[in-house]
Amino acid sequence: MASSPVLPDTPPLKVKNIGEFGLIDRIARLLPCSSPEVVVGIGDDVAVLKSPTSDYLLATCDCQVESVHFLKDVITPHQLGRRIVAINVSDIAAMGGEPTWGLVSLVLPEETEVDYIESLYGGMRSAFDELGGVVVGGNVSRSPDRLMIDFFLLGRVAPDRLVLRSGARAGDLVLVTGHLGDSRAGFECMRQPQLDISREDRNFLLARHLTPRPRLKEGQLLASTGSVHAMADVSDGLAADLGHICSASGRGARIFAAEIPVSDACRRAAEAAGADAARWAMTGGEDYELVFTTSPGEAPKLQQIVEEAGGTPVHIVAEILEDPKRMEMVTAHGEIQPCPTSEGGWDHFRPVGAS
Amino acid sequence: MASSPVLPDTPPLKVKNIGEFGLIDRIARLLPCSSPEVVVGIGDDVAVLKSPTSDYLLATCDCQVESVHFLKDVITPHQLGRRIVAINVSDIAAMGGEPTWGLVSLVLPEETEVDYIESLYGGMRSAFDELGGVVVGGNVSRSPDRLMIDFFLLGRVAPDRLVLRSGARAGDLVLVTGHLGDSRAGFECMRQPQLDISREDRNFLLARHLTPRPRLKEGQLLASTGSVHAMADVSDGLAADLGHICSASGRGARIFAAEIPVSDACRRAAEAAGADAARWAMTGGEDYELVFTTSPGEAPKLQQIVEEAGGTPVHIVAEILEDPKRMEMVTAHGEIQPCPTSEGGWDHFRPVGAS
Repeated sequence: MASSPVLPDTPPLKVKNIGEFGLIDRIARLLPCSSPEVVVGIGDDVAVLKSPTSDYLLATCDCQVESVHFLKDVITPHQLGRRIVAINVSDIAAMGGEPTWGLVSLVLPEETEVDYIESLYGGMRSAFDELGGVVVGGNVSRSPDRLMIDFFLLGRVAPDRLVLRSGARAGDLVLVTGHLGDSRAGFECMRQPQLDISREDRNFLLARHLTPRPRLKEGQLLASTGSVHAMADVSDGLAADLGHICSASGRGARIFAAEIPVSDACRRAAEAAGADAARWAMTGGEDYELVFTTSPGEAPKLQQIVEEAGGTPVHIVAEILEDPKRMEMVTAHGEIQPCPTSEGGWDHFRPVGAS
Repeated sequence: MASSPVLPDTPPLKVKNIGEFGLIDRIARLLPCSSPEVVVGIGDDVAVLKSPTSDYLLATCDCQVESVHFLKDVITPHQLGRRIVAINVSDIAAMGGEPTWGLVSLVLPEETEVDYIESLYGGMRSAFDELGGVVVGGNVSRSPDRLMIDFFLLGRVAPDRLVLRSGARAGDLVLVTGHLGDSRAGFECMRQPQLDISREDRNFLLARHLTPRPRLKEGQLLASTGSVHAMADVSDGLAADLGHICSASGRGARIFAAEIPVSDACRRAAEAAGADAARWAMTGGEDYELVFTTSPGEAPKLQQIVEEAGGTPVHIVAEILEDPKRMEMVTAHGEIQPCPTSEGGWDHFRPVGAS
């Protein structure tokens, strides 16, 4: 038998080889849309959409910048596409809403491989297929160097289901879905490839960091009860995001550090790294869990509803205080300390000198 | 009289000095919003908006990248803010719609001066105050180097007023508002500061390039007649944008080069630069005029309506052909040539080797 011929290496197709409109054509083919609500979709400068009649429109955006938010050798383009959709959907979930339309603003070097962009959109599509929502448009621009993906997401919510950050009341309990700190632990696994933990733990934590799953059903379920007073997603860290709820509500909070749910994998990774898992959980950010407040009488019911619906655990981690200036934490040893908001939670430009 | 004391120079406030949330607070103060339709505006992760009941929702975005789309020493931040709003509103205008909500995704180096960002938002606001629309949210991310402003604009249009690219019919005439080529001429004025033209011409052309005015009222007026079959804005160049109309409509076109309206200032600048004004007008792009098609019987009426309403001239520049493969141009000497679409119009990644 003759051996199969060795094909010469085909150089990868670059964006500069097909041009802006060639790229948009390929993207449009990757994201076919048959929704009767989309009057004009990808390929035009403007998406035209039929609006629902009585819902509120939700609008959010989040940008992922190469070498700031992601490294091309750490996250695959498919994962990156999933991640971008997830972190935007998480914001919609925290209001009790549902995602509807996405627009993607791509800023990319002309040397970018077309395969990379197609995988990126494939990731977006697979996440949207699971979560609802359709990419209906966007824009492509040239970058002299690094890739940037800006995702704009629209959503909707019935007015009586809308939950804001601003409704927390003194005496409310504060609850979180899932576990916190996993994303920070996953980041540590990337930073320290030699960290002495099991492959299973590492894979779990990396997935939590790279491709978080937004708590969409949980957010909608919680909002539907009418018992949630305020809600946010944990993107900047529990201390910071609860801080956002408190400042929007004109209230303070006391976090019970020992009650913050931390996964076994996160605990083991922190131990291996000589770090404090509770601090990762408190300030790490990017967990995309939900943090919400309710009256003490309603808390057990809400825990039960969410856990029964999809198995997501819900823990009480703090209480809302009357005084907006009090942001404090009860340590595992029972001491009361100031909440580590400013030193911990994610601020893209943490002020120099902030303690 | 004592001379006034010389104050020590205060170093400019940088973004890193006030942090992400400090910056967002300032932006929110710059853009106060009292619209009853804005349930949640700037400062939250998600904007919450009351939708009109029966209109179509329009969604578009456009990104301005430092050193690709603008140079900080050429355009002031106020001008840049106005420009970003204008080029997005232009897309909405070309559908007959009106702008409603804007989201701004800022990606900026931490060394950016806060004054710069405040002037940028001041420019956006002044443009939005004139054109309608309110900035209701956005996102701030860190860039290691250059500034990038991604603007995401929503709008609305009554379904019976919507004009698409795809409705051009064989035999239609093609009309444009205003003059073409001014933006390209303004770019040349920046590139050649020594170009021998009058200060008045230079200022006019620079303004047309840096802070174009979208033809919003004209677009709405044209759409309201019900006689416009297809419309687009001239962002990529007449040849390219008419090409988009033709490919969406499955038709061809014949452009009459001698009929393309060129301002006297543009003509003088082209002469001084030894360039062809008609070519600038045909392929320069970024004029943000409107190009639209209508039946020959309706064309004079539409010209008259627009000119009488606001003084904007409207010229017939082309006709729509049955055959989608024919994209041709009649030169000033009466010769028929292929239309210079691919060599001229703006493609962010013009394919290498395209003729």
